Amino acid sequence: MPVADDGAGPCQAGFACAVWAPRLQSQLWCIFAGMNLYHTDPRRAALWQKHEGRLQEALAAWQRRTYWAAYSEDPKAYPHAEEGLSDFRAQLRHPFDRLRQEGDEWLIADEVSPYTQEPLGIAYPKTTVAEYIRRAQEALGVWRWVPWTERLGLLFESVERMAARFHEIAHATMHTTGQAWMMAFQASGPHAADRAVEALAVAYQEFSHIPAEVDWMRDMGRSQAHVRKYFTPQPEGLSLHIGVSTFPVWNTLPGLYASLAVGSPVILKPHPRAIYPIAIVLAILQEVFEEYGLPPTIVQLAPDTVEKPITKALAEHPLIRLIDYTGSTAFGEYLESLPGKITFLEKAGVNPILIESVEDLEAVAKNIAFSASLYSGQMCTAPQNVYIPREGVRTKDRVFAYDEVRSALEKAIQDLVSHPKAAPAILGALQNEAVGERIEALTQAPGVRKPPTPYTHPEYQQARTLTHVLIELSAPHENLAREEHFGPRLLFIPVASAKEGLQEIYQLAKEKGMLSCAIYTIDENFKQASARLLAEAAVPVSYNYRGSVFINQNAAFSDFHGTGGNPASNASFTDTAFIVKRFRWIELRDCISG
Amino acid sequence: MPVADDGAGPCQAGFACAVWAPRLQSQLWCIFAGMNLYHTDPRRAALWQKHEGRLQEALAAWQRRTYWAAYSEDPKAYPHAEEGLSDFRAQLRHPFDRLRQEGDEWLIADEVSPYTQEPLGIAYPKTTVAEYIRRAQEALGVWRWVPWTERLGLLFESVERMAARFHEIAHATMHTTGQAWMMAFQASGPHAADRAVEALAVAYQEFSHIPAEVDWMRDMGRSQAHVRKYFTPQPEGLSLHIGVSTFPVWNTLPGLYASLAVGSPVILKPHPRAIYPIAIVLAILQEVFEEYGLPPTIVQLAPDTVEKPITKALAEHPLIRLIDYTGSTAFGEYLESLPGKITFLEKAGVNPILIESVEDLEAVAKNIAFSASLYSGQMCTAPQNVYIPREGVRTKDRVFAYDEVRSALEKAIQDLVSHPKAAPAILGALQNEAVGERIEALTQAPGVRKPPTPYTHPEYQQARTLTHVLIELSAPHENLAREEHFGPRLLFIPVASAKEGLQEIYQLAKEKGMLSCAIYTIDENFKQASARLLAEAAVPVSYNYRGSVFINQNAAFSDFHGTGGNPASNASFTDTAFIVKRFRWIELRDCISG
Repeated sequence: MPVADDGAGPCQAGFACAVWAPRLQSQLWCIFAGMNLYHTDPRRAALWQKHEGRLQEALAAWQRRTYWAAYSEDPKAYPHAEEGLSDFRAQLRHPFDRLRQEGDEWLIADEVSPYTQEPLGIAYPKTTVAEYIRRAQEALGVWRWVPWTERLGLLFESVERMAARFHEIAHATMHTTGQAWMMAFQASGPHAADRAVEALAVAYQEFSHIPAEVDWMRDMGRSQAHVRKYFTPQPEGLSLHIGVSTFPVWNTLPGLYASLAVGSPVILKPHPRAIYPIAIVLAILQEVFEEYGLPPTIVQLAPDTVEKPITKALAEHPLIRLIDYTGSTAFGEYLESLPGKITFLEKAGVNPILIESVEDLEAVAKNIAFSASLYSGQMCTAPQNVYIPREGVRTKDRVFAYDEVRSALEKAIQDLVSHPKAAPAILGALQNEAVGERIEALTQAPGVRKPPTPYTHPEYQQARTLTHVLIELSAPHENLAREEHFGPRLLFIPVASAKEGLQEIYQLAKEKGMLSCAIYTIDENFKQASARLLAEAAVPVSYNYRGSVFINQNAAFSDFHGTGGNPASNASFTDTAFIVKRFRWIELRDCISG
Repeated sequence: MPVADDGAGPCQAGFACAVWAPRLQSQLWCIFAGMNLYHTDPRRAALWQKHEGRLQEALAAWQRRTYWAAYSEDPKAYPHAEEGLSDFRAQLRHPFDRLRQEGDEWLIADEVSPYTQEPLGIAYPKTTVAEYIRRAQEALGVWRWVPWTERLGLLFESVERMAARFHEIAHATMHTTGQAWMMAFQASGPHAADRAVEALAVAYQEFSHIPAEVDWMRDMGRSQAHVRKYFTPQPEGLSLHIGVSTFPVWNTLPGLYASLAVGSPVILKPHPRAIYPIAIVLAILQEVFEEYGLPPTIVQLAPDTVEKPITKALAEHPLIRLIDYTGSTAFGEYLESLPGKITFLEKAGVNPILIESVEDLEAVAKNIAFSASLYSGQMCTAPQNVYIPREGVRTKDRVFAYDEVRSALEKAIQDLVSHPKAAPAILGALQNEAVGERIEALTQAPGVRKPPTPYTHPEYQQARTLTHVLIELSAPHENLAREEHFGPRLLFIPVASAKEGLQEIYQLAKEKGMLSCAIYTIDENFKQASARLLAEAAVPVSYNYRGSVFINQNAAFSDFHGTGGNPASNASFTDTAFIVKRFRWIELRDCISG
């Protein structure tokens, strides 16, 4: 066995060669042009050519984080208003036959319009959990080996086609969620599409900074080592997406597109009361997949009913690896407890406002009233607990007493909810009866300042409406302040000082979590101290929001939605983690010469 | 309440303003120069200036993935050979007094040289678990608010200073792990330092693509909205790093530097038998922190003994959020089962080789013998199961019978381990007695082709040495083939065909996991099919390794170590996930005008 006995000089090839290796003869062997791992297709590649520039633009915006949108918010920018309305009307009381997936039966959904209180009467194809999984697993074998460039091209194409259906999606959203029409249009249309593009952009960033193939060469002294290395991003497994009734499109698209981008087929289990809006999106995706020679079952709709849920059977299936979910904390914690799952969860939180000092109390009150009223408080970012110092709130000129601050807020809310045009345009309707029942039940609490009452919707006499319950607590530690009361509500919570209020919020963030937090202060030191403290509790704080910007709004490409670091969510739309936790880099190395 | 009744034109400000907002007056309010969230320091900022260029170079290398190293592998490149040896000798039988952390007592470690079999007699300062946590939590309050640029500057500086101690670290590694000197030098020195720089480079990438501060402006028609947004990366919490006895520096530096980079203080619980090498690194880090005005306890050594372990008490502490670990599968699964932890685990695996067809059987046998012999098979990437088709192994000219292939491997191993210079330089010594006992116990199995025997180390008569046990199984399903037998061993496993061998490896990957996998084939179709199949099981495959490249080697900046996608590990050195799972982006928004 030839072994170096001359010391072999400084080692050039790692500890491995120190004594032994330099004498092994290297050969030039079996040079391949490259491993053809992927299913490529020129038409799909052309789609990538078509959309790559736009995706680069989106990624630049995500990195820059100034104002940018892929899709206009203006409904008039989309020339499909009449078509959208007629499609919506034609779909009511008919089977949803646009999906390209077989069903064993038609499931009549629990969808009821919060405006007419009539069932939508739409049926969706349904099969067994085992069959959804079987199809998804089959699709996985194909989809994971479609090059990521082609995947992103196909997915961007589907968003483009979705834009032509924003109007129908808006009507479907309005009549399942209870959102007012403009919110339904924007949240389920351009804002959701922007979030989809954002997920694709971050995936693009992650995939493109590692080469698909590289020649690693190293001079080993007596030989030239040459290893061809291949890096392929492979999905963690199958995805389950569990939809929510209030934002069935906006909350779904980030996770849906993130999973699809990494090559993971998605089984979408919509909320049984809000299927139609997202079914439109899925039909478009399936259409694109089929048109480009791929199994439409890369994404599947798996509807169920409130009475016979299938969510747990899907979530617990061992082949389901990735789970996206928006909903209650209890169910979220159940999902987190399942072994072997990677979860992306948005749960309940308690969103606070702290008023330390203000420039203009009326402007602040109006802004808060608006935020608390949008979609009747059914946004995950809607404020609930308003902490007001008993020692009053300072402006540059004077100090407003506690009562004056509370009264200003009460007046701003009353003005808004009693305005015949503002109320329907902003509050919309309650998604379901339980929301109203829970809010009504709060009137049993002491300290009710204003009971909830329905408002009359000018267009829909049957609309399920309710204005806020306003409650004043006697102390910040009351139980009411430590739970989310989903719906139209605002709690006024006296604190001895702003500092105490800040401590309360910090504790609340640690224990219950929050998706938004507003602080009003004109004191620079208070601003800085509160920013540091709350950032440590992973709270996204909005300071001095007023005018036409609102704490509820988190815009794609600029704002993260959820920090993922407090109990209200374990994920963020859309940071790098939201993408990279879904796939693994697999490296294959081919020794060309040793 | 002023509400739009003129339709207000196309909405410019999101659904929020559709009806209500345009009439709210916007004001220019409380413009701050910016929130000073961070503890900045000009000397630390200068360190960043000093090292930024090098880190950019490292990041470019990580993205390019061709050959690159931050530190030379050649011991002669570091002019501290004599100093390193004398420092090592002076440290033996003395307290390790270089740490800048208080101890309640001096703990005499379980460290015993595998070469002399004498205790090193080094004592380390020790305190209580509660005290480690208290200090780490205190350090967190400072470290998290040091700007990431300054953090990366300090950390790079520590790696630079570590290079001046590579020689001492090499001796310390050799006499705790049993590695041969050259491996000890390279693995604990330049290779580990490269992995540290790599972690810093990926952190640099992640931090730098999101701005620290940005002005978001939007024309709202009647007003100009202006929101200043701050993005701060905040650590998930405190880190615990649990060291391993075989690679106490190489396996530790990636997670250690990743956690420190994101602002998370680290409590390092070394393996009780391999403290000295990593204690040197920690002393350097503490020196740098203190020199630059920071608490040295940003990193702490928390030593224990085999008899009185403290690992579980640390791991279960609610303030420990991030855990890095290399070791047994059983303990790894225990760590994974702890609620509320984010883990980065390298566990046991069973690394296979499949010989389908070859160009040159002798070259293949030599390469495999080397890989199986390096550090007496105590590398996590060492091969164990060699699958050989009963139908033989094809070359271009002929077919080698199963027996011929097995014999070629046996001969190559025998040649290596019986060579008086190769054996000590490559095999080194066994880290501890249990390794030898477990390997000896394998001789009870049927099919032993060669029993393990000690070899004589020319320099250390007392060295704990052992050559391979070689065992031939009768079938691939035997239990022996489904467990890792850590140490000098190789199992010959006959399979009916290469295709059957591939299926075996696929199943093994799913059930037990693997950190390396070698396939020899000159058949392009077999190569492609196996690459796809095994990539789906998240296996990193090396094809046709020979000459002076070895499957055991995973080089920083080019190779990922562990895919994180099979049971042998849930993390990868160093992909993006290895960094981004440790921190969260927190966004603070300050409304300048609404």
